[in-house]
Amino acid sequence: MTDTLTARILAGDVRAAGRLMRQVDDQHPGARAALDALFAHTGGAYIVGFTGNPGSGKSTLVNAFIRTCRQKGLRVGVVAIDPTSPYSGGAILGDRIRMQEHALDEGVFIRSVATRGNLGGLSRSTPALVQVLDAMGFDVIIIETVGVGQDEVDIARVADTNLVVAVPGMGDDIQATKAGIMEIADIFVINKSDHPGADRLRRELKTMMSLVENPPEDAWTPPVVHTIATEHDGLDKLFEKIEEHRAWLDAQGQEGARARRRIEHLIRLIVQGELDARLARAMGSQAWKQEMDALTERQDTPWRAAELLIAMLGGEA
Amino acid sequence: MTDTLTARILAGDVRAAGRLMRQVDDQHPGARAALDALFAHTGGAYIVGFTGNPGSGKSTLVNAFIRTCRQKGLRVGVVAIDPTSPYSGGAILGDRIRMQEHALDEGVFIRSVATRGNLGGLSRSTPALVQVLDAMGFDVIIIETVGVGQDEVDIARVADTNLVVAVPGMGDDIQATKAGIMEIADIFVINKSDHPGADRLRRELKTMMSLVENPPEDAWTPPVVHTIATEHDGLDKLFEKIEEHRAWLDAQGQEGARARRRIEHLIRLIVQGELDARLARAMGSQAWKQEMDALTERQDTPWRAAELLIAMLGGEA
Repeated sequence: MTDTLTARILAGDVRAAGRLMRQVDDQHPGARAALDALFAHTGGAYIVGFTGNPGSGKSTLVNAFIRTCRQKGLRVGVVAIDPTSPYSGGAILGDRIRMQEHALDEGVFIRSVATRGNLGGLSRSTPALVQVLDAMGFDVIIIETVGVGQDEVDIARVADTNLVVAVPGMGDDIQATKAGIMEIADIFVINKSDHPGADRLRRELKTMMSLVENPPEDAWTPPVVHTIATEHDGLDKLFEKIEEHRAWLDAQGQEGARARRRIEHLIRLIVQGELDARLARAMGSQAWKQEMDALTERQDTPWRAAELLIAMLGGEA
Repeated sequence: MTDTLTARILAGDVRAAGRLMRQVDDQHPGARAALDALFAHTGGAYIVGFTGNPGSGKSTLVNAFIRTCRQKGLRVGVVAIDPTSPYSGGAILGDRIRMQEHALDEGVFIRSVATRGNLGGLSRSTPALVQVLDAMGFDVIIIETVGVGQDEVDIARVADTNLVVAVPGMGDDIQATKAGIMEIADIFVINKSDHPGADRLRRELKTMMSLVENPPEDAWTPPVVHTIATEHDGLDKLFEKIEEHRAWLDAQGQEGARARRRIEHLIRLIVQGELDARLARAMGSQAWKQEMDALTERQDTPWRAAELLIAMLGGEA
């Protein structure tokens, strides 16, 4: 059963891949064997991260980039990470809209990941989905993320080249530095670069980069690329800069180290999932309920309770 | 030593509080005893979360809200969570600028938290810092966060009332739903409400809320408040709506449940920190290096490696 599913995925069967991805999302126990079997066939894809605030036109840019890749004969897989809103089912909606352009193209596979709020799920299943696309033989895999923060740092560990998409006129200097995504950028993209303020934004980005003290001599300096995604403007330049970054990684011998970090990151996420499950079991126990009663009466402290909980985890390990 | 520090903090000594907060940030072992001792004195503060994208004028709004609270004789503590940029030291800069207004006011204490990228640190120390402010007797504690995603959901578990700050003209419908912070909002604030598009944004927010299927009869419907923080406009209305939400929580009997969830959340963060430390030790071992060599050669799989790692953790528990 698993053998058949694995074989079909390796043969590029998108329905089989979709089925395994749903199993991954649902934490179906059957997914594990298939992922184990696929792992030996991974490592061939080049992974590009697209990160930027809502309003940056990032989804349009990703669509335009897919077109550029297709023109060059490259097959493209996309994992789009959308925090799910209970009001809209935003991920699915966005997915459908984007699928329209590439629906009939077998060289493109787009998968949206719902994040399910409080389980730390934003990045949990992403590396496994990337593995499936990698094993299917996609040349380029795009990971698209919204917003800023820890999630983006997690994503950066999965991608070979990280693009940070900015847009003119969306905030002043201090707010730009708050974004916290500057540190992961291999390439800055100024999208909607025909809007007022594009040159000012470019200068600000250059200034921020110039503030890095004593960069190593062979350091990569993130270039700033101007695009107008809606008019497919600047996409060839962007593709070129990604290739330059890839060549730089190769020259640095960092691709091996990145691949290793990527595997380690995947393992961390798997371990995290298992520990979370054990924690949930421990926190559902009667002993824990009594401890919580003592805590709400301020008769014990959270730090002592944490010790108790860790002992409960260890007993099950 | 710890007794003295604790006593000084309970007496409202801001220097002593600052010292303990630095110990918390640095994960200094001495912090634990002081936090244990302070815990019995917590639970009196009302906690308000301010969340919104960069560019929403959120920091200005928080400043204006502090002023409103001070006018009512309330003492205010602030924990501002700023992803640190290696280019700018943004957190410290923002802190200094804001401190200027309230520098001479002993009824205001502002503390910025640096997030330190990859340690999942965004929310790790926040609950402990909130506890220190709570024990010091601040009436209102503000937690200010940037951006969207998992971090905001974590923050929501700490706050009694969560404000989501939006601003007109920063994106279309689909992008608004991507924000993923709609689900945590108790109150929506449209800041810069004199900008074009404020009414449209209000309609969009109302439409999104109307899409909730079968809400419980006694559910809280998040109000939409218009503010112009730079002109101190709408702040009394905002304060009023927070009081209404507080009264609703009291009527629901949910304050106790929230307090309990808050403690449980704090414990989770403490446990997480300890497990991360054990994981780091295991992944620094020679046995792990050999396993990683096998993995990069695709001679083992990440899922089997995760089992090995969990066994290594359990042995230390």
